[in-house]
Amino acid sequence: MPWLNENFQKLPAGYLFPEISRRVARFSKENPRADIVRMGIGDVTRPLTPTVLAALHQAVEEMGRAETFRGYGPEQGYDFLRQAIAEHDFQSRGIAIRPEEIFVSDGSKCDCGSLLDLFGPGNRIAIPDPVYPVYVDTNVMAGNAGRLLDNGHFEGVTYLPMTDENGFQPELPTHPVDVIYLCSPNNPTGAVLSRERMAAWVTFALQHKSVIIFDAAYEAYIRDPQLPHSIYEIEGAKHVAIELRSFSKTAGFTGLRCAYCVVPSELRGATRDGRSVPIHPLWLRRHTTKFNGVSYPVQRAAAAVYSPEGDLEIRQLIDYYMANAQRLRQGLQNCGFTVFGGENAPYIWLKTPPPMSSWEFFDRLLHDAHIVGTPGSGFGAAGEGYFRLSAFASQERTAEALHRLQQWAALV
Amino acid sequence: MPWLNENFQKLPAGYLFPEISRRVARFSKENPRADIVRMGIGDVTRPLTPTVLAALHQAVEEMGRAETFRGYGPEQGYDFLRQAIAEHDFQSRGIAIRPEEIFVSDGSKCDCGSLLDLFGPGNRIAIPDPVYPVYVDTNVMAGNAGRLLDNGHFEGVTYLPMTDENGFQPELPTHPVDVIYLCSPNNPTGAVLSRERMAAWVTFALQHKSVIIFDAAYEAYIRDPQLPHSIYEIEGAKHVAIELRSFSKTAGFTGLRCAYCVVPSELRGATRDGRSVPIHPLWLRRHTTKFNGVSYPVQRAAAAVYSPEGDLEIRQLIDYYMANAQRLRQGLQNCGFTVFGGENAPYIWLKTPPPMSSWEFFDRLLHDAHIVGTPGSGFGAAGEGYFRLSAFASQERTAEALHRLQQWAALV
Repeated sequence: MPWLNENFQKLPAGYLFPEISRRVARFSKENPRADIVRMGIGDVTRPLTPTVLAALHQAVEEMGRAETFRGYGPEQGYDFLRQAIAEHDFQSRGIAIRPEEIFVSDGSKCDCGSLLDLFGPGNRIAIPDPVYPVYVDTNVMAGNAGRLLDNGHFEGVTYLPMTDENGFQPELPTHPVDVIYLCSPNNPTGAVLSRERMAAWVTFALQHKSVIIFDAAYEAYIRDPQLPHSIYEIEGAKHVAIELRSFSKTAGFTGLRCAYCVVPSELRGATRDGRSVPIHPLWLRRHTTKFNGVSYPVQRAAAAVYSPEGDLEIRQLIDYYMANAQRLRQGLQNCGFTVFGGENAPYIWLKTPPPMSSWEFFDRLLHDAHIVGTPGSGFGAAGEGYFRLSAFASQERTAEALHRLQQWAALV
Repeated sequence: MPWLNENFQKLPAGYLFPEISRRVARFSKENPRADIVRMGIGDVTRPLTPTVLAALHQAVEEMGRAETFRGYGPEQGYDFLRQAIAEHDFQSRGIAIRPEEIFVSDGSKCDCGSLLDLFGPGNRIAIPDPVYPVYVDTNVMAGNAGRLLDNGHFEGVTYLPMTDENGFQPELPTHPVDVIYLCSPNNPTGAVLSRERMAAWVTFALQHKSVIIFDAAYEAYIRDPQLPHSIYEIEGAKHVAIELRSFSKTAGFTGLRCAYCVVPSELRGATRDGRSVPIHPLWLRRHTTKFNGVSYPVQRAAAAVYSPEGDLEIRQLIDYYMANAQRLRQGLQNCGFTVFGGENAPYIWLKTPPPMSSWEFFDRLLHDAHIVGTPGSGFGAAGEGYFRLSAFASQERTAEALHRLQQWAALV
């Protein structure tokens, strides 16, 4: 009988979003007429843009003719997409990332999990708190997290708290760590690392030879021109950082599935006998052995995002969501909530009125106002007492939610 | 500095197909006018069928309207697809597989790698030889394979030779093993496990509580009505087997990306403290935490394969390739080659004329006849002295290749 990976047993009861689904399903069953506004899971709602649709249809046409049919593509992604990414997301902003350093994948969630294949046991992992739960969960599964403590923390993880007190800018650890996760704009708080803080992280990583996994899934939502979009805007970052990007939130691809991961050729890790080894060939080997490329029509759709029309359309798409964020932020502040985020990210991060816990707030909001949000504690212990609302609903539904929130706030 | 996963260093120089690509690219550069017939990588060449194309276009349309747009889907796959699979691939054949036991993925290659996340260290792994190289490579990466020996075998793997002598039916191991890979129809030999042999494997696995990973990617090519398509046709298999299926070769989805994995609720593994634990919840957790579902239009395309029209079209597609296989097999036999496979699988497995090694045959065939095939030794040590030709080229290119092979055989 095969031994199982017992690290799975250490995971808390359920991944956050399925737990939310269960509670909402139960509520819906008991209240079938309730008109629920869903601002929980960070999923886009606007349709794909015309340029993306045209590229999809055209690629499907190609797949229907023997002369233009495409079977297996390069596992790392087609050159047309890797080149468009390198040029538009990096080179045009003065960042020297080459197409060979870009690996197209079917999602940043998948990349988060897959990247851990590169590392051996015994690494010290630092993870912001609160943050996208997949970083912790995948490290638990990989055996990097150790024992679950009573406070909800894993013994082997160095947590980097992000709170109102530190302006949601995680502090550098007081001891060396090997792998550091950073998420900017941060999911769920909406906080963005300043250029100075990002530089401090790169300096720390250079000093300790740490690898930073920099998740920039929401970079397209940054409005403040002073804030960095890519960690490679910082000198030296190519020696220490992997960057994750996604078309999910940028172009509405959550249902289409396309993302990418930048693994610079300068990045290195260590072997037990003390050699320093480049990581790029390892990731290439991992990618070509355990993955078979992203669907061809989807890669064409992603490339279309970089055309002038595609670019304009997704800017409008993001403007749409950010107008929601702006309205939510303002409206919630007006009725007395303490609100963060929503300025450079599609998430509103609000303080729950004491003594309400995050899940209590979730349940009350669902039952009283028929609004689904996400309990802050689901993103980590430091998220307790906070609550996330997403700006991804339609303008009308956002207005409806705000209206209900305002009425409800008067009662709470 | 992070410790790297040093198991990667144990992998042989390159994955088989990239090595073939390199040799072909070098040859093409030196011989730019050569008209190369590609029968190497097992990739389909016929376009997607009309019903699949219509489903893709329609799903793309849906993604273009707010009312029908779909963002994140269920990680395990949409119900419409899981139900169609359960009904058409299993229930209609008298096999009690339920939709909840089916996990839709973006490829069997990915599933092969991902499944190893479920198992802890110290399992004894049995793998046919020759076989699809991903089974060995992913086990090497996961640290299950141990040291690479001079004979090209890994110390920790129990190899199951498939040779002319045993009729390409792998023998049961003489000692207990924990995880057993079986591939039927086998890639590369084209051999199919008989019902009796498959039953013997299930009995062995039930006796030793082993888990069988049964790769049935080519089941649609089985012509002989006596041969089993699914391991679940064998009584008791739901207690011991995971089955992998793919739309890649069945419906020409190598460039679209869709497959699935069956994890029955009866299947169990062991914890170190001696408990027997069901594997289904672990896989569900793995799938929901490290994967975000298959592209929605691709899932619609896969479901279309199960419509009456879709089914008819893919039967014709498979007939087309199998007519190539038949012609290749006959033609090669006529000019004196010893040939296997090609009757229930799209691969021809031929003996290289002694003393030519597999790679020598590859190089000679490429240089003399401008035909790309796959060296048998690339699939394992027992594949040495064999060579794989794929039936996936067009009818015209297959005829051209056969013509050249016949001329060349007269000279060898």
